[in-house]
Amino acid sequence: MSATRYTYLGPEGTFTEAALRTLPEAATRELTPMVSVPAAFDAVRSGQAAGAFAAIENSVEGGVTATIDELTGGEPLMIYREVLLPITFALLVRPGTALGDVRTVTGHPVAQPQVRDWLRERLPEAVWESAASNADGARLVREGKYDGAFAGVFAAATYGLEPLVTDIHDAANAVTRFVLVGRPGRPAAPTGADKTSLVIWLGDDHPGALLGLLQEFAVRGVNLIQIQSRPTGAGMGRYCFTVDAEGHVAERRVAEALMGLKRICPKVRFLGSYPRAGVAPSDVPPPRPGTSDADFIAAAEWLARSQDGRS
Amino acid sequence: MSATRYTYLGPEGTFTEAALRTLPEAATRELTPMVSVPAAFDAVRSGQAAGAFAAIENSVEGGVTATIDELTGGEPLMIYREVLLPITFALLVRPGTALGDVRTVTGHPVAQPQVRDWLRERLPEAVWESAASNADGARLVREGKYDGAFAGVFAAATYGLEPLVTDIHDAANAVTRFVLVGRPGRPAAPTGADKTSLVIWLGDDHPGALLGLLQEFAVRGVNLIQIQSRPTGAGMGRYCFTVDAEGHVAERRVAEALMGLKRICPKVRFLGSYPRAGVAPSDVPPPRPGTSDADFIAAAEWLARSQDGRS
Amino acid sequence: MSATRYTYLGPEGTFTEAALRTLPEAATRELTPMVSVPAAFDAVRSGQAAGAFAAIENSVEGGVTATIDELTGGEPLMIYREVLLPITFALLVRPGTALGDVRTVTGHPVAQPQVRDWLRERLPEAVWESAASNADGARLVREGKYDGAFAGVFAAATYGLEPLVTDIHDAANAVTRFVLVGRPGRPAAPTGADKTSLVIWLGDDHPGALLGLLQEFAVRGVNLIQIQSRPTGAGMGRYCFTVDAEGHVAERRVAEALMGLKRICPKVRFLGSYPRAGVAPSDVPPPRPGTSDADFIAAAEWLARSQDGRS
Amino acid sequence: MSATRYTYLGPEGTFTEAALRTLPEAATRELTPMVSVPAAFDAVRSGQAAGAFAAIENSVEGGVTATIDELTGGEPLMIYREVLLPITFALLVRPGTALGDVRTVTGHPVAQPQVRDWLRERLPEAVWESAASNADGARLVREGKYDGAFAGVFAAATYGLEPLVTDIHDAANAVTRFVLVGRPGRPAAPTGADKTSLVIWLGDDHPGALLGLLQEFAVRGVNLIQIQSRPTGAGMGRYCFTVDAEGHVAERRVAEALMGLKRICPKVRFLGSYPRAGVAPSDVPPPRPGTSDADFIAAAEWLARSQDGRS
Repeated sequence: MSATRYTYLGPEGTFTEAALRTLPEAATRELTPMVSVPAAFDAVRSGQAAGAFAAIENSVEGGVTATIDELTGGEPLMIYREVLLPITFALLVRPGTALGDVRTVTGHPVAQPQVRDWLRERLPEAVWESAASNADGARLVREGKYDGAFAGVFAAATYGLEPLVTDIHDAANAVTRFVLVGRPGRPAAPTGADKTSLVIWLGDDHPGALLGLLQEFAVRGVNLIQIQSRPTGAGMGRYCFTVDAEGHVAERRVAEALMGLKRICPKVRFLGSYPRAGVAPSDVPPPRPGTSDADFIAAAEWLARSQDGRS
Repeated sequence: MSATRYTYLGPEGTFTEAALRTLPEAATRELTPMVSVPAAFDAVRSGQAAGAFAAIENSVEGGVTATIDELTGGEPLMIYREVLLPITFALLVRPGTALGDVRTVTGHPVAQPQVRDWLRERLPEAVWESAASNADGARLVREGKYDGAFAGVFAAATYGLEPLVTDIHDAANAVTRFVLVGRPGRPAAPTGADKTSLVIWLGDDHPGALLGLLQEFAVRGVNLIQIQSRPTGAGMGRYCFTVDAEGHVAERRVAEALMGLKRICPKVRFLGSYPRAGVAPSDVPPPRPGTSDADFIAAAEWLARSQDGRS
Repeated sequence: MSATRYTYLGPEGTFTEAALRTLPEAATRELTPMVSVPAAFDAVRSGQAAGAFAAIENSVEGGVTATIDELTGGEPLMIYREVLLPITFALLVRPGTALGDVRTVTGHPVAQPQVRDWLRERLPEAVWESAASNADGARLVREGKYDGAFAGVFAAATYGLEPLVTDIHDAANAVTRFVLVGRPGRPAAPTGADKTSLVIWLGDDHPGALLGLLQEFAVRGVNLIQIQSRPTGAGMGRYCFTVDAEGHVAERRVAEALMGLKRICPKVRFLGSYPRAGVAPSDVPPPRPGTSDADFIAAAEWLARSQDGRS
Repeated sequence: MSATRYTYLGPEGTFTEAALRTLPEAATRELTPMVSVPAAFDAVRSGQAAGAFAAIENSVEGGVTATIDELTGGEPLMIYREVLLPITFALLVRPGTALGDVRTVTGHPVAQPQVRDWLRERLPEAVWESAASNADGARLVREGKYDGAFAGVFAAATYGLEPLVTDIHDAANAVTRFVLVGRPGRPAAPTGADKTSLVIWLGDDHPGALLGLLQEFAVRGVNLIQIQSRPTGAGMGRYCFTVDAEGHVAERRVAEALMGLKRICPKVRFLGSYPRAGVAPSDVPPPRPGTSDADFIAAAEWLARSQDGRS
């Protein structure tokens, strides 16, 4: 039944599945691997699944295009949770393969830049070919198509391979961020360490408008966590921006900034307010003076008194 | 009775009285000259008068300190109307006085810079001494204390003098702005060509804070008509600013800017929203795209839908 | 000999080669296809080639990661020319293949989103597998590994294929931008329609710093053509930005903005000033008042006089 | 001889003279009181004096109009020194006068607001009339025209009066700032605690332009000490601004900000760079990161290398 099914970018044995399983509720959901991010997300749109789970950003490679494009286009979805997972690779081989035997390697295209240096140093002659996923690469090694696959060490058992080398990662502290999306609904209540995600389309003059966009946040004391450009497909130089801002839409400074953006930008899509992974409420500095909910309320009361001649 | 009395900075025969009489309702009010701006304004505060009328700004000399100080300090008052009056002076003398006889001249200190060039050229030897008002200067000439008084030509009859020279003004197009103040109350309804007046106190770092102040207006598309500094008296380098902004507090962009100022500034005093003298609604350009009331309402509705999962 | 060799991302028959051949000087250069963008660029770094040519941005997919990463990392290179090429695909098949026979298709990963809709509609069952390049996809079709390859129609003859369908493109007006890079040197002289490319690294607080970055341009009246984020690999939320600004580093407003960025940003890499493809000098609006070279010179002279007591 | 004469706003016995005498070089100059600020300043313009000394700002009343107007208009002069003097008044009377005998009081108009509260409390019936200066008020008391004069206690002896009450001041810490002006010349070398004074005229849209003006300073990390509006006399709503900024024109961040202002503003007048009174170099925080002279030089060198292909 849909209310208990979460789809994710499969196949089984990927980092995505590993990340999804860190969510407590995953234990009580039917976890269904899908062949693509669009397929996983469309299952939510059509009501066949309650949630879909996919990587959205990698600290080495940046935004995951397929996921971002599903959130910026198509029928609206919202983000309800995020998960951070450190990424290190194992080189999985058929039992008995030695490092010297490895002439062809595979893995998801996103994995390549994270193992590039390691390859250059340890297997300079090895030829890389991309696979649809790290787990799919493991399957292709199982089938003999390639000699080695870069994947999570947890994928070895699933595919009857063995990890020849583990803990491979070019960039220390490589981490991938995953999101759980669902159909639009009320965001969870603020926790004190929340973030709000948006997609913002700018008009023709995007760089000038970008300054205006940032000022809408700055004037209300809303810090941005990140901002990333994505082409809209409408022509060279046309971008939309995905923005993660500190705070929850239930906070007035965030709400006012969002309304400001809505007014000056051709299009804004609200992707949700949800708890920040890896950040405790005690880590979050207080709002800049003058931007707390209490400050907004006091100012609104002052204005009402002023308009009423009771200032 | 107080509801029908308007006080003004007297004595009779000043530009202030002339400006006050341009208001249609002046015909049905008891117009009472007072010895000082504080006296005129205090009569309103105490309920002895419904309104007080005084100059607030001169295009040559700038802000009229006494009026501004009454509006920034003491019990709050609000501005309900403004009047613009072109200023030209007559040199009033006792009948029979020739220009060559004029050795001492007087007038209000604000008049001096407006007749300085004329004096330098036509009466280079004449000694200027300030009077409490232009009309008081006329009285002192009547009494023989000075030889000539600079005042409005309309003051001649009142004081039994004659205008020896008329249309004296150093700066072409010199104009004085007057305001009618009353006890705090609801502003008149928007006319489409309104202005909103404020006094804004900044914190310790006033020049940096001034940038923040201007950004609160700019981000909401509210143009300023003028901004002027006034020392607060709290020490060298401490200023408050009097600000006239385009628009009416009943407009959302103005209201949001005011609330923004209230949040970031130690103190804000709302001095009222009232029709702009000399500006017709058809002269006022439409609000910047994204800042009309309709845009604010549409953005608020979008946010409400978003928060409710109906985006 | 290196001075006459240009490398490009091969193999032969790609859009890259087609774009490169639009450069007049290509006729007199030895054009050498390379297996990867790093290989093409390293040939320039090592002196084996005078220039390297590669796609840097696609109007549908955005920045080409491999090219941008080569420009942001490694030994510095500079951009000397850009080329815009409209992109439409042909479906290349072995002679005799009918549309109904096509079960597997291939092409460069960047091609996929540009043919996705077409595939969904016309070949919904076809399985996509990525190839190293569009031309390489054609080769694999030739070898019988796949049934169809998406590539430029000009690739058909080279690989003994025939175009079954032509003019395939999901987004109208899809265009790819290519750059010719070389070792650092003096930029070409300004043409009146130039752009300046930079990579800018921001400090820890990148969204706040982004506002500062944009203000360095804005205050000098330098418009941005585009700005794109790229992760630095140093951790989640760490980005550098590639920026294309209007104007030439030989113009003072551009030079002052660059120096401003250099001062406030941890690292700035100058990627060159070069003519804008598809923009004539007559299309370029004049600089904002106060930002022409003449204005800068006049201001510098005024300051010199002022410092010398001759103001 | 002119090189040894300093003029000041007389007569003798004013705060101005007291402030001037705090300058070490005053001991070796001929100090000549003048009847007005214009007269004092014109003596410098005509070469009859090497310097002129006058109050420019009072912490209670704000800018001293006459002095500011002399600096913003007429032939250019420059400020070379500033002096801060705490202001407290004595009530000077003819010997034998008791407080109960004082019915009329006088003093410079600027003194009035500083003794207003004291008067209200101690001499509520006393009538104020303004004198040309505090010392002139003392003279008029000597001559019997008024009963008491507010002036510096040091004026008592000069005019044969006695101080009936001393240490009168409404605002604690009232202080007046004086400047020594001379003909334009090279500013003194930086001391590490300097200020730079300017007059800046804005175009038609002064409030919008004011934001631009402040941004020219902000983007270069130059803090403002104060900014004050003055009407230009060209019509209602037309202002120029007098600005005191931290730093010396010999510092590159200040110089670049000045050139930026010169480019965007219709007119800028440089009034000099000179040591800040009451501020030691050790009190001055270091420039914001990226805005020291070393940062400017490093950025200029980087740009030169970049333009030369040596980045």
